[in-house]
Amino acid sequence: MSHPSDIEIARAAKKRPIREIGAELGIPEAALVPYGHDKAKVSADFIEGLSKRPMGRLVLVTAINPTPAGEGKTTTTVGLGDGLRRLGHKAAICIREASLGPCFGMKGGAAGGGRAQVVPMEDMNLHFTGDFHAITAAHNLLAAMIDNHIHWGNELGLDQRRITWRRAMDMNDRALRDLVCGLGGLANGVPRETGFDITVASEVMAILCLATDLDDLQRRLGDIIIGYTGEKVPVTARALKADGAMTVLLKEALQPNLVQTLEHTPAFVHGGPFANIAHGCNSVMATTTALRLADFVVTEAGFGADLGAEKFMNIKCRKAGLSPAAVVVVATIRALKMNGGLGKDALGAEDVAAVERGCANLGRHIENMKSFGVPVLVAINRFSGDRKAEMEAVEAFVRAQGSEAFACTHWAEGGAGTSALAARVAEVAAADRTGFVPLYPDAMGLFEKIETIAKRIYRAEGVTADKKIRDQLHAWEEAGHGHLPICMAKTQYSFSTDPALRGAPEGHYVPVREVRLAAGAGFIVVICGEIMTMPGLPRRPAAETIGLNAEGQIEGLF
Amino acid sequence: MSHPSDIEIARAAKKRPIREIGAELGIPEAALVPYGHDKAKVSADFIEGLSKRPMGRLVLVTAINPTPAGEGKTTTTVGLGDGLRRLGHKAAICIREASLGPCFGMKGGAAGGGRAQVVPMEDMNLHFTGDFHAITAAHNLLAAMIDNHIHWGNELGLDQRRITWRRAMDMNDRALRDLVCGLGGLANGVPRETGFDITVASEVMAILCLATDLDDLQRRLGDIIIGYTGEKVPVTARALKADGAMTVLLKEALQPNLVQTLEHTPAFVHGGPFANIAHGCNSVMATTTALRLADFVVTEAGFGADLGAEKFMNIKCRKAGLSPAAVVVVATIRALKMNGGLGKDALGAEDVAAVERGCANLGRHIENMKSFGVPVLVAINRFSGDRKAEMEAVEAFVRAQGSEAFACTHWAEGGAGTSALAARVAEVAAADRTGFVPLYPDAMGLFEKIETIAKRIYRAEGVTADKKIRDQLHAWEEAGHGHLPICMAKTQYSFSTDPALRGAPEGHYVPVREVRLAAGAGFIVVICGEIMTMPGLPRRPAAETIGLNAEGQIEGLF
Repeated sequence: MSHPSDIEIARAAKKRPIREIGAELGIPEAALVPYGHDKAKVSADFIEGLSKRPMGRLVLVTAINPTPAGEGKTTTTVGLGDGLRRLGHKAAICIREASLGPCFGMKGGAAGGGRAQVVPMEDMNLHFTGDFHAITAAHNLLAAMIDNHIHWGNELGLDQRRITWRRAMDMNDRALRDLVCGLGGLANGVPRETGFDITVASEVMAILCLATDLDDLQRRLGDIIIGYTGEKVPVTARALKADGAMTVLLKEALQPNLVQTLEHTPAFVHGGPFANIAHGCNSVMATTTALRLADFVVTEAGFGADLGAEKFMNIKCRKAGLSPAAVVVVATIRALKMNGGLGKDALGAEDVAAVERGCANLGRHIENMKSFGVPVLVAINRFSGDRKAEMEAVEAFVRAQGSEAFACTHWAEGGAGTSALAARVAEVAAADRTGFVPLYPDAMGLFEKIETIAKRIYRAEGVTADKKIRDQLHAWEEAGHGHLPICMAKTQYSFSTDPALRGAPEGHYVPVREVRLAAGAGFIVVICGEIMTMPGLPRRPAAETIGLNAEGQIEGLF
Repeated sequence: MSHPSDIEIARAAKKRPIREIGAELGIPEAALVPYGHDKAKVSADFIEGLSKRPMGRLVLVTAINPTPAGEGKTTTTVGLGDGLRRLGHKAAICIREASLGPCFGMKGGAAGGGRAQVVPMEDMNLHFTGDFHAITAAHNLLAAMIDNHIHWGNELGLDQRRITWRRAMDMNDRALRDLVCGLGGLANGVPRETGFDITVASEVMAILCLATDLDDLQRRLGDIIIGYTGEKVPVTARALKADGAMTVLLKEALQPNLVQTLEHTPAFVHGGPFANIAHGCNSVMATTTALRLADFVVTEAGFGADLGAEKFMNIKCRKAGLSPAAVVVVATIRALKMNGGLGKDALGAEDVAAVERGCANLGRHIENMKSFGVPVLVAINRFSGDRKAEMEAVEAFVRAQGSEAFACTHWAEGGAGTSALAARVAEVAAADRTGFVPLYPDAMGLFEKIETIAKRIYRAEGVTADKKIRDQLHAWEEAGHGHLPICMAKTQYSFSTDPALRGAPEGHYVPVREVRLAAGAGFIVVICGEIMTMPGLPRRPAAETIGLNAEGQIEGLF
């Protein structure tokens, strides 16, 4: 039997009016700011009034290291949310918004798949409620104010060679990576080298996702370091008086968006920072709002657990005072086989030994997640070709780790496909067995924090870094930034910095190439390897085949 | 007695839920796509169903040449709409959306003023319903696809020195006017000179405002000429296969936005093309939708009647098959005095002679408007310092022209302040005395069209242009673009191309500096003088003082 495509399922979905979804969480209609009939923002006033309410249980969905075979983290987040709701729990999910740019390259949508999707998926992959456009505008206002400041006399003494604030666009446009602006003569400002990053890589995006209210948002925006004077003194957005206007531009965007899954589970979809140079989770506003309204909130973090979950714990949870009640690590038989050394073409045949080899990757993620003091479960996201013996091998492996694995069929069956997992998650989370502790204390030295992540999470032998980088870290410590957490930017395909090294490598070194201070977001970005902050389009971009069909429906976007 | 400020009035306004505003026009709630509780888009499906309905009467509000003293065109449009509705007519107004960029420079809002405003004014001056962001995205997708095409081998043989499509941003950012992109090596594409225009100057904006439905939108987007091959053959957006994805990005934006005046008159606020290099009117979609739902629709066109109304007639009305039933020319005593030769400091004292001299400007606009075969009335937008003798001088002058002038006090009194004007407009428009004819036929040669505008509207002695420009016009005629109307880009401060030449100059020449083909929008842009398509910020940008106050209200934006 052939399955309908994601878009066919999404189009056939009978959505409930968004006010009914809000009502399920006790949000009155007046507290919903509608965007069409199927999307709404939850008003800031209403959220402020929730602050005294107790919080529900937070469940993090993370995954083994990603492979081209796919894991299905978002799909599992949706499926688990639906599964919890089917069991009668007041449940909600929290995921990230999709970036517009990659949709025109080759990436499909970011709203789950099969029977485990969030709708309206077209909107979510296009302008949605305009949050990313607002972030782009706020980012570029600051940039315009910087060049304007220099043009009118440069009172603050900015060194135009030391301006670190670039411009942003939500588009895959490699030609904007490096450019010289301010050309054409006196009236057009001062020529200097700069470039554009994609909006999801903007520090404004990370700030919006970590801010707890408008005041906190403005404070963080003001703290952004946009560059340095000739004497290397940092200059902030506040010094340029840009923080107020940026906050005004982001006032609506800070309010979390509410949509629904195919099964009408409330879904908060809000914010979408990069998972390498930023922390890769949906907004704190969405997560805390959901936790004050629902008993169980299922959320996810970008990439595999070594990057995404580590940052979720050490940056988002630490800073927002959140304490996850359970972690679900998603794996697929196919991805385990690739982690076990098989190529993409060899995934079709039964190969229990390869699965068992690949389990080393899964096992290490389980161990790592447990080290945060949180109960860990495993979801095996089933594909139709998976063999019984392969499934049993994973289940046995996970049992031997002192954890439990659950076969899940939410892609084909929706929430019904996660009933066993959901029941156990509810049980474990409700038992409040969590004793969440971040990996390192605020007070630890910055380089030591990097080493701790590298050794304890990546199982590296050590960290290598030039004296220049160590000196920079020391300088930031002396300037009062030593308490900040670390945001690692490395390949998502391996525990190491070598994307080809699958499974559970050991004994490797983590070379730090560059460090950056995100003073507004509140973390130190540590770059290990090539990190691209402005993607390009492929030879045949998806945009060429995207269009409206005769019925006015969007084709080619997914 | 001191008047409350615009923002105080707007904040104190009791807005009706947008569904009630829609209901007044017979739009069912399901046909409104809400954006918050006070803004909505009118759904494309509903609009399609209106196509057989008869149209109401269209009234254009235009003005004498603008001066620093102000005329109040938008305010009069709002006031007249409110006035018609107070008389019991089913009335609506149609105005343009505001550009975000200038709000952070020094310009105030664009939603009327005093008791004649459209609300919610904060939203209208910020992201509103996201239309401009969608236009920016569509514009920049095309730009990214151009550089991507060159990067991957340049199959179409584009000459990178002949690419005319720039990028767009809704921001005043002079540093982006001229730049070299594609730097940084092989992976970043091919270095070339280009730059950014502000979004309102994008041809995509003009296209959105002239498109009659989604098919027409896509056809026009496909027709955009993005540059030329080495053999000077034009290359279109269609050849790059960008038209489908651009249409998808603009699908929601094409639906007109509905808001309300302070007196709850339905207000369509949609699109906002530049009034120099584009035609400067709100969208055809908004105007035709309003005309099918209301008996009287009051709209406006950018700048003075020589630029704005001329384009409204010769581009918008001609192409959309609209026929205005009446034209209202707005003047103020202060602006007439400036046209009569007074400086800004001399406007306070009574000076009937200066008013009478300035009336030459008004008189010529009246004459010009009458030449389109449409009844013309004059609105004198009263300021508190205007003298009785000055008012009477204008009234006498207008009477002598065979027209009528009405003193209006809508700024202070809302719709009650335009009752006499509204009654007469309704009478004149309902009499269907209009015999609307555009100024020139489609078949006229392009240079002859330019001469016709210059001589008949500007009263110039003639047009000067290099052979190169005349050759270019001939080449376009031979390529099949000869039927297109002309979009003049000249100073708005004078009938001539010299901004200092107020009143009613004669005998001047109009020098054509450059011509551009906007094949998608469907007009030839004729540039006479310096035209800036990317503004800069002033020394002390408004952004520095924009922010949220302790009550969470926006300060400094207006």
